[in-house]
Amino acid sequence: MLTQQFPVKGGMGETSYANNSLLQRKVISMTKPITEAAITAFFSTIAATMPASLTIADLGCSCGPNTLFAVSEIISIMIDLCNAKKHKLPEFQVFLNDLPGNDFNTLFSSFLPRFQEKLSEEMKSKYGASAALACFFNGVPGSFCGRLFAQESLHFIHSSSSLHWLSQVPRGLEENKGNISMSRSSPPSVLRAYYEQFQRDFSTFLECRGQELVMGGRMVLTLLGRRSDDPSSEEYRQFWELLAIDLNEMVTEGLIEEEKLDSFNVPYYPPSPKEVRREVEKQGPFSIDCLEVFEVNRDVFETDFDPNVVSEEAADKMVGCLRAIAEPLLVYHFSEEIINEVFKRFRAKLGDRLSMEKIALVNIIISLKKIT
Amino acid sequence: MLTQQFPVKGGMGETSYANNSLLQRKVISMTKPITEAAITAFFSTIAATMPASLTIADLGCSCGPNTLFAVSEIISIMIDLCNAKKHKLPEFQVFLNDLPGNDFNTLFSSFLPRFQEKLSEEMKSKYGASAALACFFNGVPGSFCGRLFAQESLHFIHSSSSLHWLSQVPRGLEENKGNISMSRSSPPSVLRAYYEQFQRDFSTFLECRGQELVMGGRMVLTLLGRRSDDPSSEEYRQFWELLAIDLNEMVTEGLIEEEKLDSFNVPYYPPSPKEVRREVEKQGPFSIDCLEVFEVNRDVFETDFDPNVVSEEAADKMVGCLRAIAEPLLVYHFSEEIINEVFKRFRAKLGDRLSMEKIALVNIIISLKKIT
Repeated sequence: MLTQQFPVKGGMGETSYANNSLLQRKVISMTKPITEAAITAFFSTIAATMPASLTIADLGCSCGPNTLFAVSEIISIMIDLCNAKKHKLPEFQVFLNDLPGNDFNTLFSSFLPRFQEKLSEEMKSKYGASAALACFFNGVPGSFCGRLFAQESLHFIHSSSSLHWLSQVPRGLEENKGNISMSRSSPPSVLRAYYEQFQRDFSTFLECRGQELVMGGRMVLTLLGRRSDDPSSEEYRQFWELLAIDLNEMVTEGLIEEEKLDSFNVPYYPPSPKEVRREVEKQGPFSIDCLEVFEVNRDVFETDFDPNVVSEEAADKMVGCLRAIAEPLLVYHFSEEIINEVFKRFRAKLGDRLSMEKIALVNIIISLKKIT
Repeated sequence: MLTQQFPVKGGMGETSYANNSLLQRKVISMTKPITEAAITAFFSTIAATMPASLTIADLGCSCGPNTLFAVSEIISIMIDLCNAKKHKLPEFQVFLNDLPGNDFNTLFSSFLPRFQEKLSEEMKSKYGASAALACFFNGVPGSFCGRLFAQESLHFIHSSSSLHWLSQVPRGLEENKGNISMSRSSPPSVLRAYYEQFQRDFSTFLECRGQELVMGGRMVLTLLGRRSDDPSSEEYRQFWELLAIDLNEMVTEGLIEEEKLDSFNVPYYPPSPKEVRREVEKQGPFSIDCLEVFEVNRDVFETDFDPNVVSEEAADKMVGCLRAIAEPLLVYHFSEEIINEVFKRFRAKLGDRLSMEKIALVNIIISLKKIT
């Protein structure tokens, strides 16, 4: 959920995704039934002509212990379906995409071999010692706001916790002084600039994926979003607004230059379900099988969850999580030196906030079928 | 030519290819007519049913300024053929394979973007400002002595200067004391162990590629080899034998432990054309379109080549070249500390050797068509 795609064409340079294991894993687990339904529906349409190999792409895969978690779930669902229907097991070709700055070296030399070993063991323990799985992995460097794959070459596309990141900081945010994202005090022009950038990015994303999926192919996407149609509504702003308060304090104390802060905005847009639906319907090649909103609560950060008491553990983990997201953006725009101070302040305020409010992250999941 | 695939299962750990720009580029240029003939023949068989996208794999791509040179030549040949035959340009999907230890990060974030820009400029200058090329790149981590791609998913496979590297140091080299490769003084058991490892590796390679290529698909391979059927013949041994002399000297001087040297052997086998042909014929799925031997001479290292005088420049460049190959193997087995001393000695001896002999590297090129 809190992984991010950093701006490709924007003013902050190109870097890789940051990974937040707890949230990422939680989101993928929560959305598993929808993924399962999408794959089951896909299998029922290709039953008679099961291809010799199935191609799966994970867009915004990042590099961390959970990078292959979604792929693992998808393959496992597909294998179970094949076995249930007595289909010969196809080969799997998996494409792991992220920006070129992602740490593919670590992914290829560390996480992938371990995953392949685990996959092979699971196959044997589930289907007997002679069970083998032909599963081939590729790294695909590039922005998903552009074509990445040959036409009609994919059967299933997955993307989790990436599409709320814009391809660049929108233009026209000069009036957003003092803020670092869409905020209560942002003028309408700023809200519009953010929304239009989201429209451009998401519509390009859909257009490209429409070309790359086979007819009947499926795509399941999860991204951070909001329930309300009002783009400056409370629900999703809290993290960035708290960070903005810290940064403004540091400007007052002379630790950060004011114009540096004025020119800093995060390339982040959490759309409403209506906005997501609108782009899908405009683009054309997809029908919507399912579009839902769900929340991840702070219990994901706590070993012993108590709804009435916020533990230090939860606050620490949440700060760690946001730091992993925001740090590269802050370092790139400001400097390495301010980071510890920013997050010390952030941690203090988050503690106050956590004791007062229910903290929840709103997610949107959409399951699509290619129809034209 | 002097890039290398290091042992995957062997005793030296897994690392990436080293790149030697001058030799690599020279070999690819020299073999271009054969590559061209293979692609032309392939195009003539698929003319009526040109696929929407063509898939190309470069096995043992390495990471360096010449990594994409072969791919660039292949794409350029394909584009010219399409234009000559008035075919609509297909999309290209390119798979760049090397061991997981290869520096894919640098390849993806530095060499690839530059190459894509150059490719796009070349298209425009050749075919007009509106000419666009859809070309998608993937990194494929893994040993080519195993399956890497889904079945029948590739149209053209290229591999240059990699297949003379064995997947591991052969077992049964205990009697090869004092040597570090096949040598005049190697007993027959050592020569046999090397040859049998080559047979296993090359035959597995052919079996896997046979599964991955589409029917009629082509494969052009270049590797270091020898003309003679005698595996201990002079022609290809000179580099490793010179290195062995240095290492033995250093044992005498107490700089290297004797048992360390005794247990060091390079996973390298330069086959004869007959040996290559034998494995292809045993494996079955390929017919041989062309099998040739050619030499790269020391002029590749010299700006102003004079056949009678060996320049310091040539000697320095040759040492740099061999060092790039041998250094990771030596560091892994011995230690970082001995390297400068080894290559100081090597350089001195290479100077003597160069002034006495014609230095040439024997290469084998084989062009194959998948027929069953």
